[in-house]
Amino acid sequence: MLIAKVVGSVVATQKDEKLANTKLLVCQIHNHNNEAQDSYVIAVDSVGAGTGDMVLYAAGSSARQTNITKDRPCDAVIMAIVDSWDMDGTDVFKKWSEA
Amino acid sequence: MLIAKVVGSVVATQKDEKLANTKLLVCQIHNHNNEAQDSYVIAVDSVGAGTGDMVLYAAGSSARQTNITKDRPCDAVIMAIVDSWDMDGTDVFKKWSEA
Amino acid sequence: MLIAKVVGSVVATQKDEKLANTKLLVCQIHNHNNEAQDSYVIAVDSVGAGTGDMVLYAAGSSARQTNITKDRPCDAVIMAIVDSWDMDGTDVFKKWSEA
Amino acid sequence: MLIAKVVGSVVATQKDEKLANTKLLVCQIHNHNNEAQDSYVIAVDSVGAGTGDMVLYAAGSSARQTNITKDRPCDAVIMAIVDSWDMDGTDVFKKWSEA
Amino acid sequence: MLIAKVVGSVVATQKDEKLANTKLLVCQIHNHNNEAQDSYVIAVDSVGAGTGDMVLYAAGSSARQTNITKDRPCDAVIMAIVDSWDMDGTDVFKKWSEA
Repeated sequence: MLIAKVVGSVVATQKDEKLANTKLLVCQIHNHNNEAQDSYVIAVDSVGAGTGDMVLYAAGSSARQTNITKDRPCDAVIMAIVDSWDMDGTDVFKKWSEA
Repeated sequence: MLIAKVVGSVVATQKDEKLANTKLLVCQIHNHNNEAQDSYVIAVDSVGAGTGDMVLYAAGSSARQTNITKDRPCDAVIMAIVDSWDMDGTDVFKKWSEA
Repeated sequence: MLIAKVVGSVVATQKDEKLANTKLLVCQIHNHNNEAQDSYVIAVDSVGAGTGDMVLYAAGSSARQTNITKDRPCDAVIMAIVDSWDMDGTDVFKKWSEA
Repeated sequence: MLIAKVVGSVVATQKDEKLANTKLLVCQIHNHNNEAQDSYVIAVDSVGAGTGDMVLYAAGSSARQTNITKDRPCDAVIMAIVDSWDMDGTDVFKKWSEA
Repeated sequence: MLIAKVVGSVVATQKDEKLANTKLLVCQIHNHNNEAQDSYVIAVDSVGAGTGDMVLYAAGSSARQTNITKDRPCDAVIMAIVDSWDMDGTDVFKKWSEA
């Protein structure tokens, strides 16, 4: 999994029928020091994520292991909203201290 | 998934029999700011996309989850035509304002 | 899928038994403007490709969806020989005009 | 598989139900000369790894082949703690000589 | 598949039980001109490869298609030892002329 920040959403009315009722979010990838990277992924949301959330996404066939994405043509899924992470015992990101 | 622009198509008469009657499109990958990248993918169309359309494609085994690509040697499928996307509440791309 | 040019072949007598009788081709990857890239893949041939042919290959689990590669430890398969492709209506490559 | 060093952990209370009770570790990727690289992965632990351990992780669908990760939306798993490795007969890393 | 040279091995006593009795080899990736690249993979051996051998490895789910790696958390397998390869009819590598 990689860490990403939800920065937007995609509207697509003409899509594979299996993707009806899925939420497609624009996710900017961050590195482990919480620096935004010049890469992104469009992921299906399975956990109620919204703009501004730091999330984890899983890619490839693993992206189809949630109830929402099972058997769908989806190669990236947000499967967790990140509360915090640390490196060597020091917090890199804490959701609640950011407000 | 990644965002791409359909820029052309591939003709291939000699191909795996399971790929008969599929449309192979040349897709130039765009980033989340809608800038064309120096990378591409040849994807099977499952949604009626054509040249000039902004699309989403799924890669890997997820590319075989549409009715058109099931059990075929296809590692990329166009599974949505993009109407619009935003970043931080601002539209980056709108299909209908481009005409 | 990506576009590649077949530039050679690999001989490997000591290999997994499931790979007996497969043809392993050296494929140099091209971009959508038909420029040779500094990357390659060794792919199993499923369509009778030979040196000099422009081909499409599929990677990952999709590479095991041909009759020749089913259930084999193969992560790349040539599944089409390219006749031509265009970008924005202009031919980038035509097989028959190259002779 | 790639070699990585466990450098931290992720807390995520809101996540896919299949990921309950999994340990999510921040892994910095190292190269074969044991130099830290500017890339990372968040992996589920299946072997009792902790901060400071050098580990191997498997990615993609292979990350779901442990008892802990089976059928879960997880695309990276730590499946071994590295004791040592050598290159051309010379030890590059030895766990026990580092203390 | 990619070409790699076996340059060492990994010792890992604490690992997923499904990986017992597998040989983990450090493989430096080469390009099609037989130049060593600054990238590597740790692969399970399925063909009796040893240090110094030029090999092919398969990645992803295809790495689990050998009898040795079936259903194991392994994302790279050595599935062939390379005897030789050519480009445009000229040998790039020949095992037996290197001694």
